[in-house]
Amino acid sequence: MERKYNFAIVGATGAVGERMISTLETAGIPIGEIKLLSSKRSEGKKILFQGKTVTVEEATENSFEGIDIALFSAGGDVSKWLIPHAVKAGAICVDNTSAYRMDSNVPLVVPEVNEDALFKHNGIIANPNCSTIQMVAALEPIRKTYGLKKVVVSTYQAVSGAGVAAIDELDRQTKSILAGESVKPGVLPVKKGLKHHQIAFNCIPQIDVFHENGYTLEELKMINETKKIMEMPDLHVAATCVRLPIATGHSESVYIEVEKLGATVSEIHQLLKDAPGVVLVDEPENHAYPMPVDAVGCNDVFVGRVRKDLDNPRGFHLWVVSDNLLKGAAWNSVQIAQSLVKKGIVK
Amino acid sequence: MERKYNFAIVGATGAVGERMISTLETAGIPIGEIKLLSSKRSEGKKILFQGKTVTVEEATENSFEGIDIALFSAGGDVSKWLIPHAVKAGAICVDNTSAYRMDSNVPLVVPEVNEDALFKHNGIIANPNCSTIQMVAALEPIRKTYGLKKVVVSTYQAVSGAGVAAIDELDRQTKSILAGESVKPGVLPVKKGLKHHQIAFNCIPQIDVFHENGYTLEELKMINETKKIMEMPDLHVAATCVRLPIATGHSESVYIEVEKLGATVSEIHQLLKDAPGVVLVDEPENHAYPMPVDAVGCNDVFVGRVRKDLDNPRGFHLWVVSDNLLKGAAWNSVQIAQSLVKKGIVK
Repeated sequence: MERKYNFAIVGATGAVGERMISTLETAGIPIGEIKLLSSKRSEGKKILFQGKTVTVEEATENSFEGIDIALFSAGGDVSKWLIPHAVKAGAICVDNTSAYRMDSNVPLVVPEVNEDALFKHNGIIANPNCSTIQMVAALEPIRKTYGLKKVVVSTYQAVSGAGVAAIDELDRQTKSILAGESVKPGVLPVKKGLKHHQIAFNCIPQIDVFHENGYTLEELKMINETKKIMEMPDLHVAATCVRLPIATGHSESVYIEVEKLGATVSEIHQLLKDAPGVVLVDEPENHAYPMPVDAVGCNDVFVGRVRKDLDNPRGFHLWVVSDNLLKGAAWNSVQIAQSLVKKGIVK
Repeated sequence: MERKYNFAIVGATGAVGERMISTLETAGIPIGEIKLLSSKRSEGKKILFQGKTVTVEEATENSFEGIDIALFSAGGDVSKWLIPHAVKAGAICVDNTSAYRMDSNVPLVVPEVNEDALFKHNGIIANPNCSTIQMVAALEPIRKTYGLKKVVVSTYQAVSGAGVAAIDELDRQTKSILAGESVKPGVLPVKKGLKHHQIAFNCIPQIDVFHENGYTLEELKMINETKKIMEMPDLHVAATCVRLPIATGHSESVYIEVEKLGATVSEIHQLLKDAPGVVLVDEPENHAYPMPVDAVGCNDVFVGRVRKDLDNPRGFHLWVVSDNLLKGAAWNSVQIAQSLVKKGIVK
C-alpha cells in the first residue's frame, strides 16, 4: 500500500497558510490526514482540501500526534512555543518564521540550492526569508560554474510581506489620495513601531526593525541567510531593503562579482535557462523582463536584465522577481516537504 | 545702476518649465526681460512672473536677441535646433536635455560639484540627468575627503521623469485597478516604444530605450555623466534604473567604496551635514530617513540610511532622495544661472 503522509499547517488561515494549502494540494505528495491549525479566532472555519472539507482547529501543544510533517507560518512566537512539542511528537517541522533560521542545528533550505542540508535536520528545518530565497535560487547556478565573490542587492518589496493589514493599508491610502483626502498611516514600516509612514505613491527604506548597526533586520537576514544557505561564510553580501506600493511580488536589483574571469551574458543565460525553478525573461528588444505583475501566482523565480558590468570583468547585473508569498514562503516550504518525502528523510 | 539679466525659458509650459519659472522668481538674480517660449500649441498663454503677466510666445530661431541666459527644457530635438541660434545671438544656453551632455566642448554641471567647469563654456552648459544630479551631489562631499573607487546604484524613479502623460497614466491605471477594471498601458516604459507595461502597483526595470549592450540609456547616462561631472573617467560606476508607481521624487540605493581606509559613519554624517544643497535625514531610532513624499517641492538632496558595509572596510551605503523636477532638473538649471551671474561669467 502507498505510504501516505500526515500534515499539519499552523497558521492555515493566513496569506501564506492559504498558499501552503493550495500548493500542497497539487505537490504530488500522497496525503493521509491533514490538520489545519490556527489561533482560537479562526477555529471552526471550513476549508476545502483536495475535495474534502477540513475544519480549522485551534493549535495547541497536543495538536501534533501522528503528524509526519508540520508547516509553520503563524509568527515567530508561535513557532518557538509549538515546534518543540511537535518535534517531541515525532513531526518534522518546516518553519517559515525567523525563529530558528540562524540556529546552527537547524538547516536553512532552498531545495534548488542546498537540498542535502535536509539530512542534517534535528526535527526542525527553517524556510529562509522571502527576499533571500529568490536571490539565492537565481545565484546558485551562476555560483556553481563561476564562483561568487560579492553580492550587492537592493530590493523592491511588496507590502504583502508585512501581512494582510499592510495590503489593506496600501489599498485604503491609495483610495484616499486619489480622492484628495489625507492619509493616516498605521501599519508600515513596522506595525508596533513608534511611527508610521505613507506607503501609497511612496517608498519606505525600512523593512522590519533597526539593529543598532544601522541595518534593518530584513537586510541582516538577507546577508546572514545567504551566507548560511550557500555555505559561504566569507561571501561579501550587502543589502538595502525597500518597501514599495505593490501588493505582491518582490523584485531585486542584484550586482555580483564572480570568481572566474571570462563569463559571458549568453553563458549565464544558458545556466539560468537550465536551472530548476528559474525562468529566464530577458529580451530587451521586446521590452521583456520580469515584473511583479507577471510573477504573481507563479512558483518560479524570474530573472532578466542580465548584463556584464562595464568596468569590472567579473561584474554582472541581474533583475530577480518572484511571488513573495509562493517561492518566497509557502511554495518553498512545500518543496522542502517534497524533498523530505522524495529523499526518504521522513520515515 | 544694478546690472539686470534677460532670460528666456524654452519649454515654459512643461512640468520642468513651470518649475524653472517658480525657482527663477526667487533665485535672487536681478531679472530684466523674461521671455517664456513654447511650441505653437501653448502660444498666447498668460503666466505670472514676479507679479507681472507674461505672454507665452512661440519659440523660433529669432527668439534670442538680447537674451543673456536661455534655459532649455523642451526635448532634445528642440535644443539641437534652437541652441545654435541662441548661442549665435549671444545667449548662454543651459540645456536640460541630453542633446549636448557628452559633448567634450560642453561643461556638464552640478554647481555643488563642479561649478568651475562653467568657465570652460562655449555658449552651452548641459544640465545632467535627474538621477545623476542627486547622486553626485551626495557623493561629492564624501569623495573630497575619502576618495571614491566604486559606485553601484539602483534607482527608484518616479513617473514624472517621463512627462505629464506618464503621471496621467499612473493616475488612470490606479483608479482602474481599484475599480476592478483592466488597464491599457500606453505610455511607459517608452511612449513611442513597441510595447507598454502597467505601472500602477508594479515596477518596470526599464527607463528610456535599450542600448545594444543591454543597458538602458538612463543607466548609461548615470554611468557616463557621473564620470564626466566628477572628472573621474576611471571611476567604477554601475547602475540599474527602475520606474516605480510614484508621481514625483526619485530615490537611490547607493553602495560606494572609498579610497582611504578608516572612514566612519559619524564622519560621513558630518560631511553631509556641512555639504551645500544636502540635508541629512538619518535617525533610524525615530524611523526617520528620506522618502519621496517628504522630498517633493524641496530643492535639496536628502541623504540617509548611511551604513558601513559589514564585509568591506571601504564600503558604505547611502539612500538618496530628491525632487526629480527640482534639483533633478529646473532648480539645477537655475542654480547654474545663479553661478553664471555670481562668477561674472555672463557679461
